[in-house]
Amino acid sequence: MTNLDLHGIFPPIATPFIDGKVAYDKLAANVAKWNRTGLKGFVVLGSNGEYVYLSEEEKRTVVDTVVQSAAKEMLVIAGTGCESTCETLRLTEDCARFGAHAALVVTPHYYAGRMGEAALLKHFYELADHSPIPILLYNVPKFTHINMSADFVARVSEHANIVGLKDSSGNVIQLQEILNGVAEDFNVLVGTAGVLFSGLTIGCVGAISALANVAPEACVKIFDLVKAGDLEAARELQLKMIPVNQAVTAIYGVPGLKTAMEMCGYFGGAPRSPLLPSSEKERSEIEAILKKADLLD
Amino acid sequence: MTNLDLHGIFPPIATPFIDGKVAYDKLAANVAKWNRTGLKGFVVLGSNGEYVYLSEEEKRTVVDTVVQSAAKEMLVIAGTGCESTCETLRLTEDCARFGAHAALVVTPHYYAGRMGEAALLKHFYELADHSPIPILLYNVPKFTHINMSADFVARVSEHANIVGLKDSSGNVIQLQEILNGVAEDFNVLVGTAGVLFSGLTIGCVGAISALANVAPEACVKIFDLVKAGDLEAARELQLKMIPVNQAVTAIYGVPGLKTAMEMCGYFGGAPRSPLLPSSEKERSEIEAILKKADLLD
Amino acid sequence: MTNLDLHGIFPPIATPFIDGKVAYDKLAANVAKWNRTGLKGFVVLGSNGEYVYLSEEEKRTVVDTVVQSAAKEMLVIAGTGCESTCETLRLTEDCARFGAHAALVVTPHYYAGRMGEAALLKHFYELADHSPIPILLYNVPKFTHINMSADFVARVSEHANIVGLKDSSGNVIQLQEILNGVAEDFNVLVGTAGVLFSGLTIGCVGAISALANVAPEACVKIFDLVKAGDLEAARELQLKMIPVNQAVTAIYGVPGLKTAMEMCGYFGGAPRSPLLPSSEKERSEIEAILKKADLLD
Amino acid sequence: MTNLDLHGIFPPIATPFIDGKVAYDKLAANVAKWNRTGLKGFVVLGSNGEYVYLSEEEKRTVVDTVVQSAAKEMLVIAGTGCESTCETLRLTEDCARFGAHAALVVTPHYYAGRMGEAALLKHFYELADHSPIPILLYNVPKFTHINMSADFVARVSEHANIVGLKDSSGNVIQLQEILNGVAEDFNVLVGTAGVLFSGLTIGCVGAISALANVAPEACVKIFDLVKAGDLEAARELQLKMIPVNQAVTAIYGVPGLKTAMEMCGYFGGAPRSPLLPSSEKERSEIEAILKKADLLD
Repeated sequence: MTNLDLHGIFPPIATPFIDGKVAYDKLAANVAKWNRTGLKGFVVLGSNGEYVYLSEEEKRTVVDTVVQSAAKEMLVIAGTGCESTCETLRLTEDCARFGAHAALVVTPHYYAGRMGEAALLKHFYELADHSPIPILLYNVPKFTHINMSADFVARVSEHANIVGLKDSSGNVIQLQEILNGVAEDFNVLVGTAGVLFSGLTIGCVGAISALANVAPEACVKIFDLVKAGDLEAARELQLKMIPVNQAVTAIYGVPGLKTAMEMCGYFGGAPRSPLLPSSEKERSEIEAILKKADLLD
Repeated sequence: MTNLDLHGIFPPIATPFIDGKVAYDKLAANVAKWNRTGLKGFVVLGSNGEYVYLSEEEKRTVVDTVVQSAAKEMLVIAGTGCESTCETLRLTEDCARFGAHAALVVTPHYYAGRMGEAALLKHFYELADHSPIPILLYNVPKFTHINMSADFVARVSEHANIVGLKDSSGNVIQLQEILNGVAEDFNVLVGTAGVLFSGLTIGCVGAISALANVAPEACVKIFDLVKAGDLEAARELQLKMIPVNQAVTAIYGVPGLKTAMEMCGYFGGAPRSPLLPSSEKERSEIEAILKKADLLD
Repeated sequence: MTNLDLHGIFPPIATPFIDGKVAYDKLAANVAKWNRTGLKGFVVLGSNGEYVYLSEEEKRTVVDTVVQSAAKEMLVIAGTGCESTCETLRLTEDCARFGAHAALVVTPHYYAGRMGEAALLKHFYELADHSPIPILLYNVPKFTHINMSADFVARVSEHANIVGLKDSSGNVIQLQEILNGVAEDFNVLVGTAGVLFSGLTIGCVGAISALANVAPEACVKIFDLVKAGDLEAARELQLKMIPVNQAVTAIYGVPGLKTAMEMCGYFGGAPRSPLLPSSEKERSEIEAILKKADLLD
Repeated sequence: MTNLDLHGIFPPIATPFIDGKVAYDKLAANVAKWNRTGLKGFVVLGSNGEYVYLSEEEKRTVVDTVVQSAAKEMLVIAGTGCESTCETLRLTEDCARFGAHAALVVTPHYYAGRMGEAALLKHFYELADHSPIPILLYNVPKFTHINMSADFVARVSEHANIVGLKDSSGNVIQLQEILNGVAEDFNVLVGTAGVLFSGLTIGCVGAISALANVAPEACVKIFDLVKAGDLEAARELQLKMIPVNQAVTAIYGVPGLKTAMEMCGYFGGAPRSPLLPSSEKERSEIEAILKKADLLD
């Protein structure tokens, strides 16, 4: 088991586009700004990074850019999941070469009906056996329509090179079953700020959450308050952030996340087509939500 | 708004049958035993009470029995939801007459596609306007395939005779949205012990949970530990109870709940057909789970 | 196996209400009008009859009324499915006494997760063993969230007193699997006019469809044209009826069905609460659809 | 509108692999054999072709191979749908250059919650505006968890360069709504042999179905019998093929399709990981199903 320390908050960072092309300089500028917010590191090529819209070459350049821009002490976790095992391994190896510290691997899902536990186990084990960097599992049923059960995660957690899980199901009961079952030192990260407080209080080591793109300080503060045992203050801040989190995830999606980033001083910009940019109406709703949460001046 | 104090733990009690007939004496005996466990009261005619299998007459006699058997200080909440508004009101009035302190009303759901917010609002308002006792909403998408949104609950919570909600969705994000939106003094009760710790720490006043049929003392202890601020001990007990809770709900259902009750010293018995009683294999699995949680000697 | 001849069209008839009370005289008048349209018989207490909103007494009086009003040669099939086996049997026996020729029994569904094939088999076999009239299975996943598989239907079709199935899934692939698997002389009825043409051409003996409340003659004509081998004319009429069928089922539900009935010369009236009556906007949309299908003068 | 004649049967052809590498010679050999079976053409890079497992280069070489191997009169339709609009257009242009006659474009789906009609419309219109070859829409909710409504298809069908739809929903009601709504000369192809007979009799011009990989002659015969008006023979053959179709789609998936191809004289081979090859048990079940349908000697 690696010595990777995953205690803290990681944003699954957005990928900036200008006129449909990746704006690597804006990406670097965003990272530079996030470097100063108390985050533990970055997840690059996640769902919020529109990874499915990037070409193979763009994916590699994005990872390279983030590794170059991240502060020395920050961890960089690359989303390397592809549908096939061979492409996933190839991307993982490339990201390792660029300096990523770990790979976050989503469940393959196009043939969801055939992705039983035997197929997924073979996929993850083949990767973990050959990957030069540690593997984190990524469970995101909202996008994949596949849910890894607690029993499955427990079993896979025994592999020495599979060191953690990002669970974005939002299902706290399942989170508890996972925590009860996994190998010691296996890192369970809650994958949405919607249950940041609940995930941390029940035993998760950290969080990877879209909200940390927009409000990294608030996420870090909830983390710190929970660690310090000030539950009441943590709970209050968590409840205050709920409308913001819902806005940048379930309600307005990646376009809304980018709009909110822009309003909070980061480069946001438009998503790639076919994602549509936030409408004027959505922009003003998002602005109102950010204001109410004291995230705008 | 009534002065109903809902801070505490309520089991949605099982209905005992012998040879397919309601065993009222066993019901009374179970209640007498639960009276001494620190529970705040009882929910009768809930999903765990197989209310859909009871005739109109049986429903009334069951409520009467529980009111008669409950200790003086215990609250009795009757599940009075029927598909039609008129039948729901009639049953609510009858239960009030028998001495029930409040009514828990499930969303009508057979015509789920037509149960929009306007229809549900009219249903709950008509009831609340005419009911002699306070109304609690009951959100249980697992059984009804309908989910009441946080916005809807917030709106309905303004009615003076609608005093609370049992949310059995297990969705902690939604629970937070509800807590953020409802009228002051509106009572949000978490509806499954799967998120008992998380529900209480995030702001719920109490819980109605199947697990409290089997392990009332453990549920009450989690409640007391959270109130006392001993989060670590509460969390530990919560995680220990997770397998038991999953067993008596998601995995083995009402038949498993009854089997576990029996093993824990209550009358359990068989469910009504078409529910099948626990198989021998299920019984021994349940026994192992109870043992591991230190619920059996 | 009974000699019940189910070749033909059956409407699952609506239940008229006036001021929230069952209007038995209007029900009788509707039946009298339907008697002259070429229908093979009636289904009473189906989903379109708002059976879940009727008290036990009302259910029995409704069946009695329909048997009394139906023309001598018409078959009367009563929907007798309740959640429990015992209540279903009791209602079946009562309907038989009133003169119903067969019982249509929906899958129990509140505890959907526990309604595996063993539970359903026991339920249907107990009924079929004791029922004085033949049993028809009723598969309606839209309302019950349970689907009976073709293999299950094939197995149950072996029981001498289970003589047919109404399949309202609209799934023509499953219909073919069922037709391939069931016992000889087992009657497969298509349960929605959305696939009336396709059901009949693939081998169903008849249909039970909401549309036959409103446009019995068109349904009967499609049946007759298919039997006569005039596929082109049948197909044309089928496609013409599709918007009407969608209107009185998926789009506007039971309230829309009643509105359409009213416009077509039957008594419609309002549904029971919590179903809301059609809005003015819905009424004018329904009227336009009926006009376009040449069902209004 | 192009003069593309889509009346007939098209297999969405499997991609052969040997030791995890695309076996282009086996692909060419399969095509050569299919050339002599009465098929109208081929769909390459469809779901059954494991397109999500192919690299960009492999996709292009596969299309090139099929165009080179197909008989002169055969149409080649390339599956060019990617998640982003820009990648989809780039692949479409490349396939056109290789000689594909049309492009089949699946709905982007990773961000399913954001793929409303405005987003999809923009995606398809941008493609159709710039594509050198005609576009066919591909609706396959089983894999994409998105369903294009009949109203949406009707609207998009007005574009001069969008000439048809493959609907793999298996939903015959929706198929009828689509047929009622689309522009004249728009080609509706049924996307699964499960409703081949029903699709053709209700008005589809042809079919793209996995079964045609294994049993092209039977699919062509059903098509010819329906055209000739011999409905009874067509129906009989359709019902006989149902278990085979279910085997190579819903039950055993792409691995089962490849196993069945092998047994029927084509090159099958193993799928790419993480898809698992058929187990021995599955192989013998598939063999029994093929035998019962008289597809093996």
